[in-house]
Amino acid sequence: MTVLTQAPEGAQQESVRRVHEVARRAQLAAGDLALATRADKDAALAAMAQALVDHADEIVAANAADLERGRADGMNTGLQDRLRLTPQRIAQIADAVREVIALPDPTGEVLRGSTLPNGLQIRQIRVPMGVIGMIYESRPNVTADAAALGVKSGNAMILRGGSAAALSNAVIVAALRSALAEHGLPADSVQLLDGGREDVTSLITARGLVDLVIPRGGAGLIQTVVLGATVPVIETGIGNVHVYVDSAADLVMARDIVINSKLRRTSVCNAAETLLVHREVAATFLPTMLGDFAARQVRLHLDERAGVVAHDTGVGFEPATAADWATEYLDAEIAVGVVDSVDAAIDHINANGSRHTEVIVTENRAAARRFVARVDAAVVAVNASSAFTDGGQFGMGAEIGISTQKLHARGPMALPELTSTKWVLEGDGQIRS
Amino acid sequence: MTVLTQAPEGAQQESVRRVHEVARRAQLAAGDLALATRADKDAALAAMAQALVDHADEIVAANAADLERGRADGMNTGLQDRLRLTPQRIAQIADAVREVIALPDPTGEVLRGSTLPNGLQIRQIRVPMGVIGMIYESRPNVTADAAALGVKSGNAMILRGGSAAALSNAVIVAALRSALAEHGLPADSVQLLDGGREDVTSLITARGLVDLVIPRGGAGLIQTVVLGATVPVIETGIGNVHVYVDSAADLVMARDIVINSKLRRTSVCNAAETLLVHREVAATFLPTMLGDFAARQVRLHLDERAGVVAHDTGVGFEPATAADWATEYLDAEIAVGVVDSVDAAIDHINANGSRHTEVIVTENRAAARRFVARVDAAVVAVNASSAFTDGGQFGMGAEIGISTQKLHARGPMALPELTSTKWVLEGDGQIRS
Repeated sequence: MTVLTQAPEGAQQESVRRVHEVARRAQLAAGDLALATRADKDAALAAMAQALVDHADEIVAANAADLERGRADGMNTGLQDRLRLTPQRIAQIADAVREVIALPDPTGEVLRGSTLPNGLQIRQIRVPMGVIGMIYESRPNVTADAAALGVKSGNAMILRGGSAAALSNAVIVAALRSALAEHGLPADSVQLLDGGREDVTSLITARGLVDLVIPRGGAGLIQTVVLGATVPVIETGIGNVHVYVDSAADLVMARDIVINSKLRRTSVCNAAETLLVHREVAATFLPTMLGDFAARQVRLHLDERAGVVAHDTGVGFEPATAADWATEYLDAEIAVGVVDSVDAAIDHINANGSRHTEVIVTENRAAARRFVARVDAAVVAVNASSAFTDGGQFGMGAEIGISTQKLHARGPMALPELTSTKWVLEGDGQIRS
Repeated sequence: MTVLTQAPEGAQQESVRRVHEVARRAQLAAGDLALATRADKDAALAAMAQALVDHADEIVAANAADLERGRADGMNTGLQDRLRLTPQRIAQIADAVREVIALPDPTGEVLRGSTLPNGLQIRQIRVPMGVIGMIYESRPNVTADAAALGVKSGNAMILRGGSAAALSNAVIVAALRSALAEHGLPADSVQLLDGGREDVTSLITARGLVDLVIPRGGAGLIQTVVLGATVPVIETGIGNVHVYVDSAADLVMARDIVINSKLRRTSVCNAAETLLVHREVAATFLPTMLGDFAARQVRLHLDERAGVVAHDTGVGFEPATAADWATEYLDAEIAVGVVDSVDAAIDHINANGSRHTEVIVTENRAAARRFVARVDAAVVAVNASSAFTDGGQFGMGAEIGISTQKLHARGPMALPELTSTKWVLEGDGQIRS
């Protein structure tokens, strides 16, 4: 594993000691949080939001120092913009924390239950996960979002943000912790790891102390965490998203959906990366579609049959390689292929997709049903943009990430996805024969 | 990791090639299984059960060879008994497969859904997990159980049983595969790995090919899998179970619950391993209880205060060490301690328990509520034996294991716990602004 080899042994041992201490404090905090009422937690959330506003000047100053260092290190302007905090952005972050107040408390919900033949009453209830580690990159708003969702769901959060936002995150977390303490909840409900990369290794191997780790960021980060972790992990956010335009598609609708899926925001995980078109409509659909892309400076990687159309219509392109079908461009760039059938599209998607979001555009019921049944992904959409894969859009209120794994949670994750369950048995002396 | 170092590099590479080939066949089978109707799957289950009965002679012969080798290798008689198959036991295994027919098909169940303000209809449905690897020890009935639960939930199963039952498992799996093929379902829905330990490593690192691995067996097996796996894992079955007898307990009830929890079957994961007694009732309760244990040849590990009682009543014991509080004896052996309060009992349990099943005996509502709220375990029981932690007892019909982790499934796991979910979006051209 990369991160293990990067830390000298002494530094790693020192990190393990320090991170385990943080995790033990988190466990104690989690014990108190699990007993807190919704009213307690909501009051603390209101105070956390206010603390962000009250400390806006300090946060902006710390953020300016982060930006200064970023510029000195040659950070590109796109990343600088993601990192930048203004009083207005801080107010938005505080509003996002306040929105969590209105969400129902998932803990305590009774999921199922019955009375057994011997009179024993059993019920399964939602309980907090306990201690959740979150490892993420760049944008400091994630720090406040994760803290708010953690408190509401009764979990103690250990946050490990990107080094580029270290100073911003430190001030944000200090503000949140003081607000928690003032409202009678443990400050250690939210802790920030500020050591080097060896802290990531220490966190993801803290078995028995950390109940779940959620990595949120680029493919490299996710791989490092998944391959190195011995605590349970939920993979998030890699989206090699396809839109398939079927032979029975409404081609006007298809064009709108492709443009929205690819270009609404190119840097997000639900953005389309590959367009597949049924051969029967390729000659009708592709000339206009490729022209649309060219007009919007979208770089094109085309398979042989799509290339023929582009050639005829005079659009510039590169031939698609095997790597293109597997690439999440996260940019104004798309791979385009022509397929012979809905099953060929499905097979291509299941072979190359990242199981995030897959779209079919068709007016044919059988094709839609087959696509929904056979495509293996967190979200499968018929005649709708891939951009809807989002906790807010799904009505979840807030999201901590989009799971692309099958275990525990799949798709947008919000408060209920941050909980576990507990079976409670109540009897009056039942024993088993 | 132990298993990695045990295989020479060449053998490991050969195993990876072979196991990946098995997993690819399983993926294809899983694709077909996901499209199979409940009627298809139930018909195949009936044929699988019948095939076990039809091949009983072959199975018994293979099992006799396994037993012969076990005796030659010095296998103890308890393990021999667990391994032994008779025509009667095979009939019971077939009956267990038939019982799965009556259980509802979990796949396709709509878990939640709504229509978004823009008219987009969304719903979350249960789908099969895909390919599940199962690594287990000894008893060959697990082979048929896992195959049946896998087929019913639409999952292709890759089974890796203990080497002691290798011949028995091979004949059982061959019978099940022929029954599947005769009923139009893929034989590769059930496959058996028969290589050495390197196959375990290959299976638990087959990312992208295997969706879930479930280890079922002793602590060593679970540790090896959890520490070495890069595919998602559900930990099962380690049960360091406590019974706490509160100051407000009905002591007659407490005695029955302790005896049932400890001695109903000592070798199972829901058996009690530690008894904690409130100091106010220790002098009343312990003399009888320790006498009961002594009369049943239960080996006692007592803390200082319990030791004083034993000394006064003339019962033999050993002093409990720190290791005793953490030990799952799985035998006629128990650790006993005296605690000062319900919170002291809870703290002891949270520090030493394996988060499986924890019991309080009390007539005090506040103590019961506090124990239920604060104890961190899959199952928390008030005034009932720990022996009820069992999928069959919970009315789940069948169980593939008892999860002691918090992610995905906690407690007894049956058919719904072997599924994932998929969000289906249906629109008429919706795009996101």
